[in-house]
Amino acid sequence: MKGYAMLKIGEVGWVEKDIPQCGPLDAICKPLAIAICTSDVHTVWEGAVGERHNMILGHECCAEVVEVGSLVKDFKPGDRVLVPAITPDWNSLEAQAGYAMHSGGMLAGWKFSNFKDGVFSEFFHVNDADGNLALLPPSINVVDACMLSDMVPTGFHGAELADIQFGDEVLVIGIGPVGLMSVAGANMRGASRIIAVGTRPNCVAAAKGYGATEFVSYKDGSIEDQVLEMTNGKGVDKVIIAGGTVETFESAVKSLKPGGKIGSVNYLGSGTYVNIPRVEWGVGMGHKMINGGLMPGGRLRMEKLGALVASGRLDVSPLSTHVFEGWDYVPEALQLMKDKPADLIKPVVKFAD
Amino acid sequence: MKGYAMLKIGEVGWVEKDIPQCGPLDAICKPLAIAICTSDVHTVWEGAVGERHNMILGHECCAEVVEVGSLVKDFKPGDRVLVPAITPDWNSLEAQAGYAMHSGGMLAGWKFSNFKDGVFSEFFHVNDADGNLALLPPSINVVDACMLSDMVPTGFHGAELADIQFGDEVLVIGIGPVGLMSVAGANMRGASRIIAVGTRPNCVAAAKGYGATEFVSYKDGSIEDQVLEMTNGKGVDKVIIAGGTVETFESAVKSLKPGGKIGSVNYLGSGTYVNIPRVEWGVGMGHKMINGGLMPGGRLRMEKLGALVASGRLDVSPLSTHVFEGWDYVPEALQLMKDKPADLIKPVVKFAD
Amino acid sequence: MKGYAMLKIGEVGWVEKDIPQCGPLDAICKPLAIAICTSDVHTVWEGAVGERHNMILGHECCAEVVEVGSLVKDFKPGDRVLVPAITPDWNSLEAQAGYAMHSGGMLAGWKFSNFKDGVFSEFFHVNDADGNLALLPPSINVVDACMLSDMVPTGFHGAELADIQFGDEVLVIGIGPVGLMSVAGANMRGASRIIAVGTRPNCVAAAKGYGATEFVSYKDGSIEDQVLEMTNGKGVDKVIIAGGTVETFESAVKSLKPGGKIGSVNYLGSGTYVNIPRVEWGVGMGHKMINGGLMPGGRLRMEKLGALVASGRLDVSPLSTHVFEGWDYVPEALQLMKDKPADLIKPVVKFAD
Amino acid sequence: MKGYAMLKIGEVGWVEKDIPQCGPLDAICKPLAIAICTSDVHTVWEGAVGERHNMILGHECCAEVVEVGSLVKDFKPGDRVLVPAITPDWNSLEAQAGYAMHSGGMLAGWKFSNFKDGVFSEFFHVNDADGNLALLPPSINVVDACMLSDMVPTGFHGAELADIQFGDEVLVIGIGPVGLMSVAGANMRGASRIIAVGTRPNCVAAAKGYGATEFVSYKDGSIEDQVLEMTNGKGVDKVIIAGGTVETFESAVKSLKPGGKIGSVNYLGSGTYVNIPRVEWGVGMGHKMINGGLMPGGRLRMEKLGALVASGRLDVSPLSTHVFEGWDYVPEALQLMKDKPADLIKPVVKFAD
Repeated sequence: MKGYAMLKIGEVGWVEKDIPQCGPLDAICKPLAIAICTSDVHTVWEGAVGERHNMILGHECCAEVVEVGSLVKDFKPGDRVLVPAITPDWNSLEAQAGYAMHSGGMLAGWKFSNFKDGVFSEFFHVNDADGNLALLPPSINVVDACMLSDMVPTGFHGAELADIQFGDEVLVIGIGPVGLMSVAGANMRGASRIIAVGTRPNCVAAAKGYGATEFVSYKDGSIEDQVLEMTNGKGVDKVIIAGGTVETFESAVKSLKPGGKIGSVNYLGSGTYVNIPRVEWGVGMGHKMINGGLMPGGRLRMEKLGALVASGRLDVSPLSTHVFEGWDYVPEALQLMKDKPADLIKPVVKFAD
Repeated sequence: MKGYAMLKIGEVGWVEKDIPQCGPLDAICKPLAIAICTSDVHTVWEGAVGERHNMILGHECCAEVVEVGSLVKDFKPGDRVLVPAITPDWNSLEAQAGYAMHSGGMLAGWKFSNFKDGVFSEFFHVNDADGNLALLPPSINVVDACMLSDMVPTGFHGAELADIQFGDEVLVIGIGPVGLMSVAGANMRGASRIIAVGTRPNCVAAAKGYGATEFVSYKDGSIEDQVLEMTNGKGVDKVIIAGGTVETFESAVKSLKPGGKIGSVNYLGSGTYVNIPRVEWGVGMGHKMINGGLMPGGRLRMEKLGALVASGRLDVSPLSTHVFEGWDYVPEALQLMKDKPADLIKPVVKFAD
Repeated sequence: MKGYAMLKIGEVGWVEKDIPQCGPLDAICKPLAIAICTSDVHTVWEGAVGERHNMILGHECCAEVVEVGSLVKDFKPGDRVLVPAITPDWNSLEAQAGYAMHSGGMLAGWKFSNFKDGVFSEFFHVNDADGNLALLPPSINVVDACMLSDMVPTGFHGAELADIQFGDEVLVIGIGPVGLMSVAGANMRGASRIIAVGTRPNCVAAAKGYGATEFVSYKDGSIEDQVLEMTNGKGVDKVIIAGGTVETFESAVKSLKPGGKIGSVNYLGSGTYVNIPRVEWGVGMGHKMINGGLMPGGRLRMEKLGALVASGRLDVSPLSTHVFEGWDYVPEALQLMKDKPADLIKPVVKFAD
Repeated sequence: MKGYAMLKIGEVGWVEKDIPQCGPLDAICKPLAIAICTSDVHTVWEGAVGERHNMILGHECCAEVVEVGSLVKDFKPGDRVLVPAITPDWNSLEAQAGYAMHSGGMLAGWKFSNFKDGVFSEFFHVNDADGNLALLPPSINVVDACMLSDMVPTGFHGAELADIQFGDEVLVIGIGPVGLMSVAGANMRGASRIIAVGTRPNCVAAAKGYGATEFVSYKDGSIEDQVLEMTNGKGVDKVIIAGGTVETFESAVKSLKPGGKIGSVNYLGSGTYVNIPRVEWGVGMGHKMINGGLMPGGRLRMEKLGALVASGRLDVSPLSTHVFEGWDYVPEALQLMKDKPADLIKPVVKFAD
């Protein structure tokens, strides 16, 4: 089979590999559509997960099952499925403790294009098919389905980590595709006011559609100065970090009330320390909780979030700004994500309807 | 009335003031015993809360009520009471949100010797007497009662913030009086293993009595190296920070499992940033929750924690290593806390039995 | 002043009383609009809170402040305010424990038209004005504002007690005004599917607008049979009870998955026992949590929920089906609530704009 | 292999069966010691789980691994292991939702001597060995180890469901072996006062050792009358139900403060309804949470609770009042549990040291 791979740091290309083997609990799937993630770009061109050779890229897709292991009960060849970016080992101690995304070690529930070949391939391997796949609801098209692999669960997890409650005033830092889903998640948890940080016009338009009520730009001064002014010096109840750097936490803490919570789902690519400003963090005692976490994966999560899309409560179609058709377009789609033109949110390549 | 005061930064002495006035909700009390806190030392000699002039010091005591306001229902002159260091305004928005200690602003529930005169005085003022005082159980002596103002609630709050569960392995950083109470709190919440960081022999002995199972010394290398070695490279489930500096968080994060929690009750006196190590914090996504908070105060808390002492479940007597009798000894007791001789845990001055 | 009162069980009429006195923490207010609650009907004609003589009725209104006590800091005469049905004593032990609605005893945060005169009066008394009033946002009209006293906080509390999470399938039993707000609350917390129990056409229409996706009628068989059929025998994730009787809990438990939660905000007017079916409750071990609670009141709650209405996220206008103008209409509005014509959801009487 | 079985309702005896087969994820184990549970008696003589034929009994033991499946990574033949009574399917939707004990359906994580042969057998089968076994710490003897299968996790879960907090006053109803562990669990979570209901002298003595501070007897009047008197009419903060019948909940609700919580781990063998008293449950709105649940099983739980025993924090030896040695004593041990002589807490049969 062919797959589009990271040949080494900084270099990509097609590779030819054997179809992966299917263990008793596993499934082999072929993609119906794939989506490119900024992480794919980080992986290849920034070496974010370290050096890799000929590793097939990609962790966002929906798929058709082509083979299942002897112990798989709930899926069969021909089933169309949602595929989460994070596919935990559900019997691990970490999963039993409620942190399946870290099964086997910190972040180790992330396997595609990290510890094994990813999904930009004619066929790919899914561990624990019963625990990690979910049937694709017929009302969700294959392009929208790709948004459920990572964008929706990651963005919504930000709203969970920040523990949004009815009537909260929420700051969402970053309105790329994950940030947009954090806006949608904050809105769907009952925020009364969502201040979003970002300026790209199509993202601003999408954020408004998802419930952002006001916007702040880095260009107009520090985030915290603007937020404090907008809140009469009080700060917001909660902050979701879905973009930025290790320095973003300084703004988040400064923008937050005592007793507030920060939920971060941003990948922090560089820097030695995440900087928490001592004084505004209440000299250590301000009850400004700092919570950062990888998205929960697995089947139940896919079913629950899939139901929001299938029922029409969540419209993910604004995310897929650039949709291609056919394997030939995978390189172009990846390059597009690297170049990030102004009108891009997510590139998707579909192989079926 | 006379009181022992911070005259200005770096200078202490007796002052003479009017007895404070008693509003409709308030009480005027006279101390039965007072205890010195490291914070008193920070306040005077490090200017931790800023410059103050002739501010009476102290926030740890038990007392006798001498006057109550017209709206006070549950206390009367002659009642012997526990007095929390933190006396919130209970109808504030922050209290309604569950963070009474920040009523009126971050940390603003801390009033004694911060926003008003403290308790090292013949008489002192308590706002919202019904909401902030608690009857002193007859089985608790006046020296032990002083430990309930700050040491017990602060130390135990560390165990709450770290969310200790049955069987957890817990690291407690710092075994001064607060850290000792964090050890006791972790033990009382069901930890199976408590690794304590500290070396002073009397504190180590007390920590053993409170449930610490192993000890780590700064002098033997980094905390994290020792903890990771003791836990087969896995780290602990929870960390309580009850001492150290802004740099201590680096060790805490590195010593912790993914999905673990840090509860900090340490006052961070200097440094621009609290440093969270990016990589070991899971590049932002390791679900290592960081939680730092001022002790909850108020009446219910005093009653609940007082019940643990009154019932004999918690023996705080090992904390009061140096007990004096009479007002004349207040300066000596404060100086002792400043000098911190090796055998000191807490100095207490009693005025009654 | 005049007020519309319960003269005794079964009898209502106008009474003349002195304007209530304003203590140091209190406010005296005059209503801008009032709304009738089914509880008013229960109180008068079913003796739900016991016998009362010449007690002024009503606990839903918005108002103008006419006098404040000497210790009130945040309100002044002329302020237009939201008034919660539940006005806790915020320094009580119950409030400190997180259950302010039970301050002073079970349900004792409910004072209007229970322990003291209610709001159907030219003037009424509010305890702890700073803790219990909230400024009326200018964008909320006086009719909608009345819905924030009880309907919104009670209905939304059902969604909180049932702990709705992203993608949950939720059963809401009852679609009177409280049930409609439970539907809205479940929707605003991220339910993917809301099955509502009820048949009155205007309520069904309103429920659809608030997010109900399917309907069940008592007339078509038992709730549980219908729900289990609609969920392939699995049951729903969560149930909100906002109507019915003590027997409703049987249907709720039978309609629920193991690990599910029931949030009830229904007043149970008769019956010795609430009946929990033993077998379907997992012979005691099914983890079907049963949670019933009075709405949280107070200022913060009013501000938070008010912000949802003020921001346009929650449209409560469909609730006020019958709006009258002027004091003369109070008897008619109450009678209407007693008669419950098919097209009634809530009667409101306004006295200002 | 031979096993001691329920031949049919009301009849027990030895049966001869094939050694069970070991799937890829499974283990085959042989018991080192077994303990008899009241449930075994209910199963045989009351038909509690329905009719069964020649089903080998037992769900409490520790064991030695004799065979593991090809996918098992963490255990090997010869390992001595703790075995939980509940062995979930960890990739099930229920487990992903946090309720592994209901994996595959309500209570369906309970497999031993329910859906398959139990552990009173020369060999027995464990599903998902990596997820459900735990290494037996060398410091725990085989008799004590049996208490970790069910008694400790069930009793302690009562304390978790009741959400015991520092200083709580707790009522524990029932002081059989599970109730004793609930007393120990409540104590280990920080209760300041534990009122236990029970009269058998050896259980009372054991309960005192585990932290019970006062006792109530059914014979001296209703539980609630006694508890309310002991608490000045206020009731307790939390109730753990570890014995009794469906009627016990009436006493529990009546003994509880508003805002209190009931954690029940009692198997309710008969009765149509669990009776919740309407008025004392706050006419549905008293925030008295009712929570009943099967013990969590699996490896992490065994490791965590095992650590409490291994570290000496929890001494389970008082539970095993009757210890036999050798397979021949299994019938006598079971009969003893049926007869329940006054001095019995738990019968254990050991086959190794």
